[in-house]
Amino acid sequence: MDPILKQALGAIQADVDAGFDALLPLPGDARTRLIEAMRYATIGGGKRIRPLLLTATAELFKVDRASAVRASLAIEAIHVYSLIHDDLPCMDDDALRHGKPTVHLAFDEATAVLAGDALHAFAFEVLADPLLSGDPFTRAELVHVLAQASGHGGMAGGQMMDMAAETAEFDLPTVTRLQQLKTGALLGAAVEMGAVLGRLPGEGRTHLRGYARDIGLAFQIVDDLLDHEGDEAAAGKALRKDAAAGKQTFVSLLGADRAREQARMLVDQAIAHLAQHGAEADLLRALARYIIERDR
Amino acid sequence: MDPILKQALGAIQADVDAGFDALLPLPGDARTRLIEAMRYATIGGGKRIRPLLLTATAELFKVDRASAVRASLAIEAIHVYSLIHDDLPCMDDDALRHGKPTVHLAFDEATAVLAGDALHAFAFEVLADPLLSGDPFTRAELVHVLAQASGHGGMAGGQMMDMAAETAEFDLPTVTRLQQLKTGALLGAAVEMGAVLGRLPGEGRTHLRGYARDIGLAFQIVDDLLDHEGDEAAAGKALRKDAAAGKQTFVSLLGADRAREQARMLVDQAIAHLAQHGAEADLLRALARYIIERDR
Repeated sequence: MDPILKQALGAIQADVDAGFDALLPLPGDARTRLIEAMRYATIGGGKRIRPLLLTATAELFKVDRASAVRASLAIEAIHVYSLIHDDLPCMDDDALRHGKPTVHLAFDEATAVLAGDALHAFAFEVLADPLLSGDPFTRAELVHVLAQASGHGGMAGGQMMDMAAETAEFDLPTVTRLQQLKTGALLGAAVEMGAVLGRLPGEGRTHLRGYARDIGLAFQIVDDLLDHEGDEAAAGKALRKDAAAGKQTFVSLLGADRAREQARMLVDQAIAHLAQHGAEADLLRALARYIIERDR
Repeated sequence: MDPILKQALGAIQADVDAGFDALLPLPGDARTRLIEAMRYATIGGGKRIRPLLLTATAELFKVDRASAVRASLAIEAIHVYSLIHDDLPCMDDDALRHGKPTVHLAFDEATAVLAGDALHAFAFEVLADPLLSGDPFTRAELVHVLAQASGHGGMAGGQMMDMAAETAEFDLPTVTRLQQLKTGALLGAAVEMGAVLGRLPGEGRTHLRGYARDIGLAFQIVDDLLDHEGDEAAAGKALRKDAAAGKQTFVSLLGADRAREQARMLVDQAIAHLAQHGAEADLLRALARYIIERDR
């Protein structure tokens, strides 16, 4: 792994863990089990790709790191809540996540539903908190970007399409759209939120949106490849569930070779979107390259 | 029912239904089932107590009705999402809500989880949307109030305590705290959000917070009384589940007579908190009285 990226990933992983630890203290009452489940799901584990994207983008515009890390706790909380609910028996029914039992197994189903819901609210509480930034315009815009990306027009909508994919025969444009909603919207929000913190006006964000769209799609293609070829122990989760469920993926539609080629092309294109930035965007470039080199 | 209240309830019910209808159009893609479930749960049915509280409070400060109704869609979306998730088999396992099948029965469990999650995001999307109000400070504060009231320090925390109540023997202060979180926090947020829209500074909201706290507790005591004495057909939901689950309620702890007396006292106290307001607060007064007179 690129040393710049390795250092940055280590730093954001430590910051995100410390942030959740500080913001989710155990209360001395009957809510304890809920907070324990929230901490179990958020502290330790997870690549922290979204926090890294957000903080790396914010760094382009010299945003102070404390604000960027705080905003990245919000987007990671959304990501984690979606994993908790996705893993439920009525959804994907997964037993393992980041190599440890899923929340509904480590606790119970009701606690898993509630912990997901509470992390969902936590995300917006963190973003709207005056502690995040003195600027309410920024806070309101961060909330709007994240809520849009995670709701029925983004992640939740993509998850619904993903469920429909079990019975429908989706073509490549539909699978692309599904993935742009299911995972791309939140990755895009990470970059967008970094730009919002940097007070970059909407019309100046086009190249960053292009970068996010391209790495989001590449990320999903590589996920499909890893799912197709990977090792369950290394992945820390069950694999090849899509094929078993009869869902079309980039690999089933394109074949592994063309899918890999497509991912490489998207990463090149993502890096090209950053041409107007100098060395300050090297971390985003390294992250784009890592997306196709990773093995989990 | 007080004619002022009857008129206001009819108006807010129509406005809330129209608002959800307008903001949740059916998309022409595989997300349709998700949006159908969101519409099923939000349009029609429900007393709309929280929207009424929010708009009635906003009216005290001459907030334009369109903004107040829009904010009330957000709080109602939070309320509805919590009902969808509460009704799930792993939570309360309820079959009936507002006299019709619960979302997981009318659709399926996975769709119910997702529809709840999507309504949760929808709430914050609506609040943070520049269309709500030109003032970003107000939008950020609305988000903060609602997220705090619905997260682990509010509604979700209260639901966790409620689950713990099945195995623990809670005393009156603990049941009071449980209910203040589980239902009181969101009722309080409705009033608080009306005051935020009215740009009333935090230190001027003490009497409104007192009003909200008192009617919230009275509301829950009456819920317990209706649960104890009511008719399932009239209520449109299953009753006496708390007693069956061995949970302490205000009725089990105080007895029905003292519970009713306590609710009356709280309503008087709530109305006393409004003494500084004239006729413009008559709707809030009528709502407080209705809370103990209602039969469902």
